[in-house]
Amino acid sequence: MKSFFQKYDSAPLTTIEGGERRLLAYKNIMPVEIRFTKGAKGALHSHAHEQYTYVVSGKFLFTCEGEEVEVQAGDSIYFAPNEEHGVICLEDGILLDMFNPIREDFITP
Amino acid sequence: MKSFFQKYDSAPLTTIEGGERRLLAYKNIMPVEIRFTKGAKGALHSHAHEQYTYVVSGKFLFTCEGEEVEVQAGDSIYFAPNEEHGVICLEDGILLDMFNPIREDFITP
Repeated sequence: MKSFFQKYDSAPLTTIEGGERRLLAYKNIMPVEIRFTKGAKGALHSHAHEQYTYVVSGKFLFTCEGEEVEVQAGDSIYFAPNEEHGVICLEDGILLDMFNPIREDFITP
Repeated sequence: MKSFFQKYDSAPLTTIEGGERRLLAYKNIMPVEIRFTKGAKGALHSHAHEQYTYVVSGKFLFTCEGEEVEVQAGDSIYFAPNEEHGVICLEDGILLDMFNPIREDFITP
């Protein structure tokens, strides 16, 4: 069987400013769960990977290419490659980011 | 700007047995949110698409190629192409499925 299961408790964890990032079951695309506390900021940045973001819980203010959008549970965003984006956490919450291709820079050697 | 936002309230919705399926912001991969009530079943099936599943909430029993795994919030699974899988909902919950490539069969003409 080539399929596999990733238990949450053993998902690779990185502590980031204002939160935690966990790598979920990945192969050719990489789902990443990010927990943010209110006030946490993901600074403006860009990358060549496509990014799909799903809001699991909480409230967030995203900026993309200078445009702002406030999102909550169930909302989703597609970030095109190389478009500059950032986020501020308005209420404690969880984001699920999916990267295509995978973020090699997130993998700890 | 090529990026775009999908508000939850206007995400394309399909009523399925025991639940609801919503198409989120998609482009080259397709994130799909599925809400299941306890007892709902996703019958055994397979497809050529890779599938990545993240458990948002609830409890589920997945079967893949004859092996069973019980999952809850935060757990994730990678389903390799063409491997037979199915699910039973043990406690009301939400799954986020990500398909690569997109599920053309989920798009209503």
